Amino acid sequence: MLEILREMADAVENALKYSDREIWKENLGEGADGTATNGVDRIAERAVLSVLDSHGRPMNVVSEEAGFIDNGRDLTLIVDPLDGTYNALHGIPFYSVSLAVTDGAMKDVRWALVRNLVSGDEYTAVRGEGAFMNGEKIRVRDFDQHNPVFSVFLGKSASELSLRLASKCGRIRSMGSAALEMCMVASGASDMYCYFSDAPMGGLRVVDIAAATLILRESGGRVLNRKLIMLDMELDVRERTSVLAIGDERLLKVIY
Amino acid sequence: MLEILREMADAVENALKYSDREIWKENLGEGADGTATNGVDRIAERAVLSVLDSHGRPMNVVSEEAGFIDNGRDLTLIVDPLDGTYNALHGIPFYSVSLAVTDGAMKDVRWALVRNLVSGDEYTAVRGEGAFMNGEKIRVRDFDQHNPVFSVFLGKSASELSLRLASKCGRIRSMGSAALEMCMVASGASDMYCYFSDAPMGGLRVVDIAAATLILRESGGRVLNRKLIMLDMELDVRERTSVLAIGDERLLKVIY
Repeated sequence: MLEILREMADAVENALKYSDREIWKENLGEGADGTATNGVDRIAERAVLSVLDSHGRPMNVVSEEAGFIDNGRDLTLIVDPLDGTYNALHGIPFYSVSLAVTDGAMKDVRWALVRNLVSGDEYTAVRGEGAFMNGEKIRVRDFDQHNPVFSVFLGKSASELSLRLASKCGRIRSMGSAALEMCMVASGASDMYCYFSDAPMGGLRVVDIAAATLILRESGGRVLNRKLIMLDMELDVRERTSVLAIGDERLLKVIY
Repeated sequence: MLEILREMADAVENALKYSDREIWKENLGEGADGTATNGVDRIAERAVLSVLDSHGRPMNVVSEEAGFIDNGRDLTLIVDPLDGTYNALHGIPFYSVSLAVTDGAMKDVRWALVRNLVSGDEYTAVRGEGAFMNGEKIRVRDFDQHNPVFSVFLGKSASELSLRLASKCGRIRSMGSAALEMCMVASGASDMYCYFSDAPMGGLRVVDIAAATLILRESGGRVLNRKLIMLDMELDVRERTSVLAIGDERLLKVIY
């Protein structure tokens, strides 16, 4: 299964490389998730779907623009063809493709792949078999309170707690791709990723986090909601949630 | 001259590619700027200096670890061999090499090159001749207050104003390489980069910003100090400053 996901990631990478940057910015109206779809989102989504077609549509699909595509299968592909669209459109070199396969809800994801489309770094996981970066096993790092780095979603729709974290921690990053920032926690590049929003359309969708959630859990980390309960989501692109993704749970004492 | 700087950037890129990651993390004590030097900093600095040697040391040097090297020349190379050391060490894919040549202080820089060591994107400028990204002319973008993106240094040594910005603006980034984040303003990827710190050792050094300052000024932007006066720095690696780098000065009304 990871081979099919890798083929999809290759297809997205190539579609971006060989497409016209003018088309990337076209506004194509609202996708199934209620947010604007850009040309580049559609290019990436079509690349994924064409690989799925070439394999005889072995799965249903949940995607940002298309919503739910029922192919009458037991498995469902949860895909964000381009996580970090704003970065990609504006030349900020940090965006990814996120692919997960489940036979139930988000907590039941069995295969996951996230690829950084700038560096080519690839994070994968199979449920029960650990998580890998470029084929090498990864684990979260131990929390060292003298040298923490937190990845925090900020800006006007971020919650008060996010701002408090941004003023408290030694090093803050805010990179603009939830999937990659969660994988950074999984590989021990950072201690935490948090996306807390109080805005009406604020929060992350299942397509943003399904793959990275398995990758982080398989590397020893936890993905929680705001009440610090294990996060699950149904396969509904309109649903949004706050996310706290951590490596070592000892940091909870520091942030609460 | 840009050809020599490019040769230095190539040397750093290769030195990182072929060196042992275990050596990267070695703590080598305090450099001339008063901060810790890691193995990876030394590997990168040596790569730059060996290119300079191969050209018969045509310039003096100001660098993080070595401080001022007087080769009895009129020109001085201001170099940060690895801007974003923390990112490089911890696997956050956003760091760069920053190279500038001056015949006076920072404001007199005549040639500048910053290369993203992950994506390979290269920003260059020659004084009076404009700025370029991968050989194509770049310009700052017009400020659109409905769709801003601010790059802000955050964390416990950031000032109150930084936190206020992080809660006010639609999109916030905090990537961890000052040189690259200033180049992002130059290429229109973001509207602003600010590094305001009240901490005793807080602030940026001339080696961090000399190259990106010319690149941003040549692309139509401004580099200011906290009093909103054009920033200049002497060639002293122990000096530190707050920095406000902007594309379009209309945004000053929004942030003050």
